[in-house]
Order: sequence, then structure tokens, then C-alpha cells
Amino acid sequence: MRVIGIDPGLRHLGWGVIEAEGSRLRHVANGTCDSGSGTLAARLLTLHEQLTDVLHRWQPEIAAVEQTFVNRDGAGTLKLGQARGIAMLVPAQFGLEIGEYAPNKVKKTVVGVGHAEKAQVDHMVRMQLPGVVIDSPDAADALAIAICHAHHQGVQRMKVKA
Amino acid sequence: MRVIGIDPGLRHLGWGVIEAEGSRLRHVANGTCDSGSGTLAARLLTLHEQLTDVLHRWQPEIAAVEQTFVNRDGAGTLKLGQARGIAMLVPAQFGLEIGEYAPNKVKKTVVGVGHAEKAQVDHMVRMQLPGVVIDSPDAADALAIAICHAHHQGVQRMKVKA
Repeated sequence: MRVIGIDPGLRHLGWGVIEAEGSRLRHVANGTCDSGSGTLAARLLTLHEQLTDVLHRWQPEIAAVEQTFVNRDGAGTLKLGQARGIAMLVPAQFGLEIGEYAPNKVKKTVVGVGHAEKAQVDHMVRMQLPGVVIDSPDAADALAIAICHAHHQGVQRMKVKA
Repeated sequence: MRVIGIDPGLRHLGWGVIEAEGSRLRHVANGTCDSGSGTLAARLLTLHEQLTDVLHRWQPEIAAVEQTFVNRDGAGTLKLGQARGIAMLVPAQFGLEIGEYAPNKVKKTVVGVGHAEKAQVDHMVRMQLPGVVIDSPDAADALAIAICHAHHQGVQRMKVKA
């Protein structure tokens, strides 16, 4: 099962694709969509185009998007919301089901504790995806989201079988 | 010049299309995109599809989108942000330039005061677009945004000529 994780952001949108077979994970690709410095509309358009290209190229079967903190300033939340709208839209346009995970759920799944440091998450992503070359901190977060989703999908399927 | 105004919202997204020739305005069409009751991704997808259909059908040449209040709760701002991402994306995909106006700028332009009541805005929209049948309060707001943009575009053009 091929999973894409997406870490939405207006400036940098991280993505990571992994292959999950039971509990075995394999890195496929990761990267960062940069929105450049145009108008808001131009930046949303370029994020949409870049993420659409990623899905065309890597053909994930399911998707997971990080749930967004809302406890920052309103203007920041609005910007993130606009980028998150694109991050949700693109996999939906490809007919993918989309899981949503809060950041501390991702950390708890990948590292074992909800308040893990970024470096710890990064370390565990590298441990679980041997040989991975990570494009950016946002791409690392996206891979962690994909790992988290693959894990919870696996757990769900075992429950269905039992 | 054909102008579309968009009032973004996750549940109801209002739109209104007018034709502006100098200071003369004419109503073309207005309506409301409803996102239904599915998952967030499904709702964003249906907003994108409906708004894309509107632009295909009515072929506006320029667009204006309401700027969003951020002084409400964070979760509300995030929802609105996600819908606003779609409202900005669709006209950008059609290659349209997009104006952005704060709600009180729209009111000030259409009614003359920044803190006008909704009923007053509605009244002035009907005055300026004789015979209009307004689909919903969100569509009325969208028509007001279109009128506001047509006015400011006209003013800009006069400045360029002068």
C-alpha cells in the first residue's frame, strides 16, 4: 500500500511517499513544494500544481494530512488554513481517502511520546526508512505522517481480520 | 468587463457575476455553492467543482474575494481559511487577477459607510443591479464584492487615463 503524508504550509509544503507491506515500510520519495514570493493566489496555484505533479508521478493509494495548530495568531492560522485547503483538495481530486492526524498523535506513533523533539522524530524516520535522504524538515514531518498513517491503517486491518 | 465576486465559506460559498461598463453595472448571475455534509476533503472537493463550473459557465475576466476576519475562534478561522484557499485557487486556475477586499471596505464602497448593516448592503446591491433575484445572503455579499471591485477597477483606470 502506497501512502503519501503531507505537512501543509503556505511557504513550504512537505510531502513524503512510503510503501507499506504489513509492518514493513520502504521509502519511495519525499520533497518540498515551495510557493515562491508571488500573490497569495499565485502561491496557492503553484502549490496545487506541484502537489498534483507529485501525485501523478508517485501514485499513492491513500493520503494523510497533518492537522493544524490553531493556537497561534489568527493571520497565521488563516494562511495555514488556505494552504491546508490545497493539501486536502489535491488527494481528494485523485479519489484518495485522507486521514488526519494531530502533530502529537504523529509523534506518539512514530517516537512513542507525544511531546518528542523534532530531532527525535527525524531520527525515528531515518531508522524506519533506511537509506532515506530527507529533502527538508517539512518533508521529514510529512514522512512521519505517512508512517503514522501506515501504522494506523495496519492496526485497523488487523482489527477487521480478528 | 465581467467581474466575479466570491464570499468564501466552508458551508456556503457565495458568488456573484456582474458586467461593468464604465460606471454602468448589470447583473449576470449569482448563486451559492453548498459543500454538503461529507468529510472536510469531500466538502473542499465539491466547492472546487462547483466554483469551477461557475467560472466555466459565466466566464468572468477578473475576480475579487472577500478578505476574512481572523478575530474569531481559531478552529473557525482554520475552516474559513481552507474554504478561502479554494476560493482563491479556482480563479487563479482560470488565469484571472484577483482583488481582495476587507468586509468594511466593501461596505464603505457599496453603502458609503464601513459599518453598514447587512440589510443596507442588500438594499444597495438591489438598487445598483435592478431586477436582480438574490440566491442567498452569501450571494448578496458576493455581488457587493463584485460591485466594489468594479468600482475600484474603474477608479484605477480613470487614474491611468488622467
